[in-house]
Amino acid sequence: MTASLAGSKIQVAVVGGSGYAGFETIRWLLRHPHVEISGLYGPPDELGPIDGFFPLLSKQLPMRQELFDIAKISRSAELVLLCVPHKVAMGYVPKLREAGLKVIDFSADYRLKDPAVYEKWYCPHTDVGRLAEAVYGLPEFYRDAIANAQLIANPGCYPTCSVLALGPLLKEGLIAADGIIVNAISGVSGAGRRPNQKYHFPDRNENFEPYAVGTHRHAPEIRQVLSAIAAKEVSLTFVPHLCPMDRGMLCSIYAQSVKESVTSEKLTDVLNDYYGNAAFVRVRTEVLPAVKYVVHTNFCDVAARMVNGRVIIFSALDNLVKGASGQAIQNMNIMYGWDETTGLI
Amino acid sequence: MTASLAGSKIQVAVVGGSGYAGFETIRWLLRHPHVEISGLYGPPDELGPIDGFFPLLSKQLPMRQELFDIAKISRSAELVLLCVPHKVAMGYVPKLREAGLKVIDFSADYRLKDPAVYEKWYCPHTDVGRLAEAVYGLPEFYRDAIANAQLIANPGCYPTCSVLALGPLLKEGLIAADGIIVNAISGVSGAGRRPNQKYHFPDRNENFEPYAVGTHRHAPEIRQVLSAIAAKEVSLTFVPHLCPMDRGMLCSIYAQSVKESVTSEKLTDVLNDYYGNAAFVRVRTEVLPAVKYVVHTNFCDVAARMVNGRVIIFSALDNLVKGASGQAIQNMNIMYGWDETTGLI
Amino acid sequence: MTASLAGSKIQVAVVGGSGYAGFETIRWLLRHPHVEISGLYGPPDELGPIDGFFPLLSKQLPMRQELFDIAKISRSAELVLLCVPHKVAMGYVPKLREAGLKVIDFSADYRLKDPAVYEKWYCPHTDVGRLAEAVYGLPEFYRDAIANAQLIANPGCYPTCSVLALGPLLKEGLIAADGIIVNAISGVSGAGRRPNQKYHFPDRNENFEPYAVGTHRHAPEIRQVLSAIAAKEVSLTFVPHLCPMDRGMLCSIYAQSVKESVTSEKLTDVLNDYYGNAAFVRVRTEVLPAVKYVVHTNFCDVAARMVNGRVIIFSALDNLVKGASGQAIQNMNIMYGWDETTGLI
Amino acid sequence: MTASLAGSKIQVAVVGGSGYAGFETIRWLLRHPHVEISGLYGPPDELGPIDGFFPLLSKQLPMRQELFDIAKISRSAELVLLCVPHKVAMGYVPKLREAGLKVIDFSADYRLKDPAVYEKWYCPHTDVGRLAEAVYGLPEFYRDAIANAQLIANPGCYPTCSVLALGPLLKEGLIAADGIIVNAISGVSGAGRRPNQKYHFPDRNENFEPYAVGTHRHAPEIRQVLSAIAAKEVSLTFVPHLCPMDRGMLCSIYAQSVKESVTSEKLTDVLNDYYGNAAFVRVRTEVLPAVKYVVHTNFCDVAARMVNGRVIIFSALDNLVKGASGQAIQNMNIMYGWDETTGLI
Repeated sequence: MTASLAGSKIQVAVVGGSGYAGFETIRWLLRHPHVEISGLYGPPDELGPIDGFFPLLSKQLPMRQELFDIAKISRSAELVLLCVPHKVAMGYVPKLREAGLKVIDFSADYRLKDPAVYEKWYCPHTDVGRLAEAVYGLPEFYRDAIANAQLIANPGCYPTCSVLALGPLLKEGLIAADGIIVNAISGVSGAGRRPNQKYHFPDRNENFEPYAVGTHRHAPEIRQVLSAIAAKEVSLTFVPHLCPMDRGMLCSIYAQSVKESVTSEKLTDVLNDYYGNAAFVRVRTEVLPAVKYVVHTNFCDVAARMVNGRVIIFSALDNLVKGASGQAIQNMNIMYGWDETTGLI
Repeated sequence: MTASLAGSKIQVAVVGGSGYAGFETIRWLLRHPHVEISGLYGPPDELGPIDGFFPLLSKQLPMRQELFDIAKISRSAELVLLCVPHKVAMGYVPKLREAGLKVIDFSADYRLKDPAVYEKWYCPHTDVGRLAEAVYGLPEFYRDAIANAQLIANPGCYPTCSVLALGPLLKEGLIAADGIIVNAISGVSGAGRRPNQKYHFPDRNENFEPYAVGTHRHAPEIRQVLSAIAAKEVSLTFVPHLCPMDRGMLCSIYAQSVKESVTSEKLTDVLNDYYGNAAFVRVRTEVLPAVKYVVHTNFCDVAARMVNGRVIIFSALDNLVKGASGQAIQNMNIMYGWDETTGLI
Repeated sequence: MTASLAGSKIQVAVVGGSGYAGFETIRWLLRHPHVEISGLYGPPDELGPIDGFFPLLSKQLPMRQELFDIAKISRSAELVLLCVPHKVAMGYVPKLREAGLKVIDFSADYRLKDPAVYEKWYCPHTDVGRLAEAVYGLPEFYRDAIANAQLIANPGCYPTCSVLALGPLLKEGLIAADGIIVNAISGVSGAGRRPNQKYHFPDRNENFEPYAVGTHRHAPEIRQVLSAIAAKEVSLTFVPHLCPMDRGMLCSIYAQSVKESVTSEKLTDVLNDYYGNAAFVRVRTEVLPAVKYVVHTNFCDVAARMVNGRVIIFSALDNLVKGASGQAIQNMNIMYGWDETTGLI
Repeated sequence: MTASLAGSKIQVAVVGGSGYAGFETIRWLLRHPHVEISGLYGPPDELGPIDGFFPLLSKQLPMRQELFDIAKISRSAELVLLCVPHKVAMGYVPKLREAGLKVIDFSADYRLKDPAVYEKWYCPHTDVGRLAEAVYGLPEFYRDAIANAQLIANPGCYPTCSVLALGPLLKEGLIAADGIIVNAISGVSGAGRRPNQKYHFPDRNENFEPYAVGTHRHAPEIRQVLSAIAAKEVSLTFVPHLCPMDRGMLCSIYAQSVKESVTSEKLTDVLNDYYGNAAFVRVRTEVLPAVKYVVHTNFCDVAARMVNGRVIIFSALDNLVKGASGQAIQNMNIMYGWDETTGLI
């Protein structure tokens, strides 16, 4: 038992509680037995009682979102869950880290290791020196590093869903590192809380469409992580689609087997071996992954099959849980030495 | 057969084609055998190819929405379907009428007969002199006046749904004129095409809520029309709700019977008598009105029952069809002497 | 702290885990710090691994639903959550109670105090002698009795939503006991898990309709409970509707104020007074109740307003949580002397 | 103008009007200016007023579905739209054809040219002799044969969507004939009208999942048609998914370009050349295909792009219109020499 368990709870600050990921983070933190939310912080135009943004939180968290104030945060918290957009995050992180705070950053700012790649897909990076310090927060692949991290780059939703499906098979050399296709779908909460014609209910409901084909910023993240796991350059085509539902994500992935003898059973065995001790990955054989089986949970379900000589892998998760807030809590649990599933049932 | 049937088609201009009602109007006009869309017109910030707003229309209507131009419209059309918001409409109508054009106005600007009532609920009226000329375009009650009208005030969706349910029963004196409750629900297209937090998909989906309780602008319209039909002051409580679906509307209406002897059969008989020749009202007995039975049609379904000594009336329609565009086409058919159902199957 | 807290966890059996309420109950029990699920039991045609019915539960509850076996249950549990339909429940309850087990019954079998009323709406009652023992499990009105109960009749979803809205106002005599109208809507999970044409996705989606008008079995339950609270006969008209969403419920209630001087503020004050200490009722003033604000929580939100001389009350809850499983857990917490909110965040 | 246009309307019988495709067929026929529905016929357990099955049709088609009766049908109709399942269809077709009736068959029974393939995927074929007579009713590829056909095998929804996307590119040799991946999604109406746990609203809503991976019966149909078009064996992987919406279909297709020099522009040019005169195919460049742009229309939208060296083609249609009933009407128009778009606006 850590010191923090024996006595008082860990104090956690949430920055950016007025977005969907912030909201979901608050909900999971409220259930967690070892932490307390010490404060909520946001940009100047997003201040006020948190239940003004999310009336569901009334009577659960009678707290105001206040202006980001490093002095106040450092006095009252030891860990910050940073749920703000890219670019904003790398403005806050240096201050938070200099104040000695642990940070779990939900944005993309510390995920891409090469600042040139970051600049190509996002904008110039203003905190390059801290990229090496950041640990990519995918526990199923980087648990040990997470345990000792002070700054976590919490993975993107599509990367989590894709990497959990492909990682073990690439690591074991069962599938070719090139020519992979990730056909992904997401619920609309993945697009954030800001209203837009694309997400206006009558335009989005009873609709389904591809978007950001060849231009989605999660593609370089997926490539970087998978290349590191495979220890070789991985190339893939990533095509996301919007699906008319609140939350949930499903990847249908197509790959080539390296050996002719690969079977569905062999693929499943490799996944089972890799995820045997993973609390939040389920290797499916009797049913295929489906959004309904993972939504509002921190699970990622995966299944792999040989079909007509091609490897097909399905993976599903809740974009707001295992794809964002739940994974952050899981990382927090690991950082503090708590059981990985604490507060995540 | 009118002259227009013998020869060329009637030329119709649509003003405000870039909203949902405009879009729906275009779709029905394209199917109509006796009319042609001669032009599309809109405000300065809504110009361009109509399929840029609604890609569904590609290859169906290769036409641009141009800036409202009275000279151009009057040269090329004889009827204008005016699908713009209140206040904008009463800016256009004087010009259109002075140019001798027939107008079907979808806005509320010419629905309320008393300019003081209009001002209370909307804004000061700038075309008071033309209020008397306008005919309320509810064919089931004002068919003869519509046939001779030059300016139609096309009814609101909630008023159409409420009045078709209550009108005959009030007219025949079966129910009390006071104490009526209209509990209504609508699909989200009723809120228009402009994005807003309230209609952002993840906020609206899997949600249901009341809105504008005691303040909805359709309430005075319903009261005015029902009072005219009942030939006495009608008082009612109108409570609308947002339902997570694209389109459709259902009113659940509660009233007191005037005589103790009123039965479900008597209520149904009165409705059947009144709507015996109405092409687009169906009096239901075997099933209750449901949105699925009317959506994408110009029908309004009604059913009345005595339950525990209270009169309950249900009515359902598609807010974009019988609640807007379809009703406008129906009015147009009557104005031109065509069969009322032409192009409305 | 009770004895059970000091040592091992309370063992709970769930009977009927393969329905939606059973599933939801399991999910909340898994999060509860003081209980353990000792077994799952069901009818002969609903046996097998629980994750065969609900794959979401894989890796969370590796347990089979076994045939109902009183000996086995009584050996391994002290509390039974009985999530089976009416009639089936009153077959099991006598056995469970005779074996000394505490029971929380989700069915209607012990809710109606008068067996004649039960027979009229359901079927002949086969355990009349135990009706007096059963406590109606609505904590906001019967907390003390619940604390000492051995058999809880867990309330219906519509009754919970209606009674929480109307109870305090009737108790304080602010509204008339007759002429109340409850216009209610529910998500489709309320209809249970058995497939049916009415709930077939393409028939139910993008649809909205009334059902069971004047015949819904929750009406006599609402009347009985409200009459007891008001200490006079309450008469009301109850009209439920199906709304195209998974879960959630909203009641729009219309009543007459008894005194002319009643205001929105007075109504709100009475609700606030009554629910000042209620953990799971929120009296709304800044926003109206909406399904999105309560879904996946145990809250019931209420708001009351005077509009045009009529009292309008809105209430919303999640039919599977405060309307079923969450309320059962809340009752369990009270029975065991735990904080009422334990495991219900 | 054909003889039939000059005088009375063509009489059409619909067999199987009580399914979704039958219902949609009725709706389009009611709008068609040159045909009349002479009768509705069905199996013994699906008889009665058609508006008993689909109350939307009340007042539009006051007709009963009667027991299939070849004598009656042949007396009163010259064309039969056969909307029954496979196997049932090939029981009816011999009788209809022997009576000299033209038939458009919605089932798979006459689509697969090789009875051995049919038997492998469906069941033994009982009308092998008529396979050669049947014309595959995809007008964009077989217009001339359709014009002279007496028996049309109306294509499946997925095959229509896939072939319209891939056909021209394979025909022109721009993409490789092997290694094609068709990742498809469909609205739930595609699964038919029979209730089932999979399509129960609370199980299907807010859900998304793959199904029939490697086993869907439309795969051999797609392969056969594309192989004929490409004049070489085409191999592909077909993976369908269920999407929570009523109707609509979208294919995301991945292929290899044969020449390195292929560009998005070249792909688009080939599609534009091929579909230049096609009334119901739209080649998209400014927007990508989306379900909302095609739903309730007979259009199929396609777009092709080179992305990272891979050809990606998207295609979208309404599974009940271009994927079934609308395509049947289009085939009928061609068979009778009417403009292909008649009644299909």
